[in-house]
Amino acid sequence: MAQQLQLSIGDKELKELNDALENGVSQELREMLNSLPPADTAHLLESSPPKLRSLLWRLIDREQEGGVLQELSDEVRQFFLDSMNITELKAITEGQDVDDIADLLQQLPDTITRQVLDSMDSQDRQRVETVLSYSEDSAGGLMNTDTITIRPCNTVDVVLRYLRRHEEIPEMTDNLLVVNRRDEYIGRLPLTLLLRTDPSAIIQDVMLTDLDPIEANTPASQVARIFERQDLVSAPVVGDNQKLMGRITIDDVVDVIREEGERSMMSMAGLDNDEDTFAPAFRTARRRALWLGINLVTAFIAASVIGMFQATIDKVVALAVLMPIVAGMGGNAGGQALTLVIRGMALGQISTTNLKWLLSRELAAGFMNGVLWAVLVAAAAWLWFHDPIISLVIGCAMIINLTVAVMVGASLPVLLKAMNIDPALAGTIMLTTVSDVVGFLSFLGLASLFYN
Amino acid sequence: MAQQLQLSIGDKELKELNDALENGVSQELREMLNSLPPADTAHLLESSPPKLRSLLWRLIDREQEGGVLQELSDEVRQFFLDSMNITELKAITEGQDVDDIADLLQQLPDTITRQVLDSMDSQDRQRVETVLSYSEDSAGGLMNTDTITIRPCNTVDVVLRYLRRHEEIPEMTDNLLVVNRRDEYIGRLPLTLLLRTDPSAIIQDVMLTDLDPIEANTPASQVARIFERQDLVSAPVVGDNQKLMGRITIDDVVDVIREEGERSMMSMAGLDNDEDTFAPAFRTARRRALWLGINLVTAFIAASVIGMFQATIDKVVALAVLMPIVAGMGGNAGGQALTLVIRGMALGQISTTNLKWLLSRELAAGFMNGVLWAVLVAAAAWLWFHDPIISLVIGCAMIINLTVAVMVGASLPVLLKAMNIDPALAGTIMLTTVSDVVGFLSFLGLASLFYN
Repeated sequence: MAQQLQLSIGDKELKELNDALENGVSQELREMLNSLPPADTAHLLESSPPKLRSLLWRLIDREQEGGVLQELSDEVRQFFLDSMNITELKAITEGQDVDDIADLLQQLPDTITRQVLDSMDSQDRQRVETVLSYSEDSAGGLMNTDTITIRPCNTVDVVLRYLRRHEEIPEMTDNLLVVNRRDEYIGRLPLTLLLRTDPSAIIQDVMLTDLDPIEANTPASQVARIFERQDLVSAPVVGDNQKLMGRITIDDVVDVIREEGERSMMSMAGLDNDEDTFAPAFRTARRRALWLGINLVTAFIAASVIGMFQATIDKVVALAVLMPIVAGMGGNAGGQALTLVIRGMALGQISTTNLKWLLSRELAAGFMNGVLWAVLVAAAAWLWFHDPIISLVIGCAMIINLTVAVMVGASLPVLLKAMNIDPALAGTIMLTTVSDVVGFLSFLGLASLFYN
Repeated sequence: MAQQLQLSIGDKELKELNDALENGVSQELREMLNSLPPADTAHLLESSPPKLRSLLWRLIDREQEGGVLQELSDEVRQFFLDSMNITELKAITEGQDVDDIADLLQQLPDTITRQVLDSMDSQDRQRVETVLSYSEDSAGGLMNTDTITIRPCNTVDVVLRYLRRHEEIPEMTDNLLVVNRRDEYIGRLPLTLLLRTDPSAIIQDVMLTDLDPIEANTPASQVARIFERQDLVSAPVVGDNQKLMGRITIDDVVDVIREEGERSMMSMAGLDNDEDTFAPAFRTARRRALWLGINLVTAFIAASVIGMFQATIDKVVALAVLMPIVAGMGGNAGGQALTLVIRGMALGQISTTNLKWLLSRELAAGFMNGVLWAVLVAAAAWLWFHDPIISLVIGCAMIINLTVAVMVGASLPVLLKAMNIDPALAGTIMLTTVSDVVGFLSFLGLASLFYN
């Protein structure tokens, strides 16, 4: 059952759930729900409209709640956290990983965070406070403190006996971390190596020193790239003082990579990365209103450009028919350049050294497509309106707008990033404004020269 | 040096490279380049314009080429593969993982693939052929054959001695896979458990059976979800007959997740996921031309709608000024719904059960925003043109277009997916067409009723 749900919490399962709820078979459902791995229960909650979601939540056993909560996206989690009292909050942090507790606490009001922290034993509290002291989007915020450390002077045999005494070795432990007397990271001993090494060998003779520890302030996106490039399962994290603080595991990095991939696409449509797919209608409408409002302002700017040429349009109404073509094509061509550069920046491919080459390439490519489509649009306009001036004007405007839009699309993300503004969000709005304004201005402006 | 480059192959390094090349310091550069991990060299190549890229490639030692090639994206790799002869191709497959060799071979013409396969020893050839028999985007295509298998009847001690005899344990080995006489997967023994278990214990008494093997035909995206939900480092892959065929490791799954995240964003701009950021201008222009051409057709469809109302525009030129606002706002609102549903589908959240709820939510949200912006746009139009009819008409058109566009944006991806058409690519084009056509038709159509 669990496996099937993992593979496809799809139509069938959701339908079964619906049926079960409608028939009031809540005991059966409760058992099924609580037998699922927390990640599957979380997925089920995220895939449910609000009413069903609240209903399902009530059926989840108290001791499952913590595990499910940490698998939920921030927005959905916030909804359930808001409904919990301090006793419940204290209960759900029990037995959770330090980084997961920190994630939960970050979403709570400060006074409540304090109360939960005070209820923990001093060692756990200190650990959580360490993680909390780093940004959620940094190596420190991603790390866990469940490292197994060993000393360089011990023998492999001592380590093997030490491990055997452990009740459990933390998940995703692929390396034992070797630290010196000052608790500084000095090397690693992979389990795969440990298993093949002569028990009498000394750790410092066999340990590997090929892996540099990650500094706790490193941004999460950079951590993801380090993991991707070096194919890591886990990596040690150190503080300013080079002291080992914990480790980051690939499961948390996978979440970062998944979110990075989504973020740009969502931003380009003015949506928050964490947006709940099944948020209620009013909340959805209110959130989207801001983005639509900003776009409306830019639409009015474009309209005011058209307004400047009302006399010309009054003379030649065909201009009104053709003008959206010029603006729209510029927006499309610019959007391609914008997207390519945003992707390139996410992959860390773009720097000031190759930016010049990239911009000249875009200039050339934009101009080529400008000429190509100018000729075709001019011909189509001729067939439609039999007016050589309109054909000439729309052809020139197409070349101008496609070239400008592509250049703006390629350079905007870099400029915005340098100003610490989200390139995907602001870039899309600004590009549309430019391609509309330049499109209408070049087309109607040129036309007004010929027709006045 | 290596670590520094991993963290930021940025301005400084690229500038140093440029300088080194310009000063002809190729020996020094050659040494530096060949001391980098293959993933970093690949990143450097991908971040370089064509000329620099070819130059760098020539400096890479023959024995490094295979490792670098497998880290490159398909398009860049194809470029280098095309320039290699059969002897070179045979050389670069040596010592590579089976799944990586299969990846390379998939990009070569069939006759050359055959020749390379024939040059391999029969065991390796058979393994590569097995992987090649599955789609690149399936579990079989992602898998490697470097599993360590053990028998259920052995003791832990036998396994420990068996491992000690291994010259090397494959990377990312977190579990030993337990198979029966028929080579069917029956359980796993985590290294972390092996290290804590009494040497005299029998494997079948201590092995875990909590992990279901992945069927070789499972799509890559589903493999990624299984890894994400269960926080796996590696997973066994079985064929139709339940026989163990190999295993998938998290590093390959991370690539799938990274590509999934990019794919939708790139598709929405009509770009290929694998598009080389530094492709030459002509190739870039030619590739983008197709998408622009399709968009031009839709732009002419929208223009023809305006063409139907030339007489009305001729009477009231203000209509030409305001009409792009209606079309544009519909496109923006619809784009938000489209993006949200595409993301929801990628996360496996949307099914026929909750689609109905989602569409009614979008209908409600679209209508609310329609009314809000209708009122504001109507007021703005009044202030601008002092014409109550224009205000009324644009208000009604806004409500119609925003509601329709949002509904179309939310339902298109699901419909297209069901028809096996890329929802991001086709959805964006079709939504623009709908929001333009409905925007112009509702606004100008209503206006023509009042002004004629």
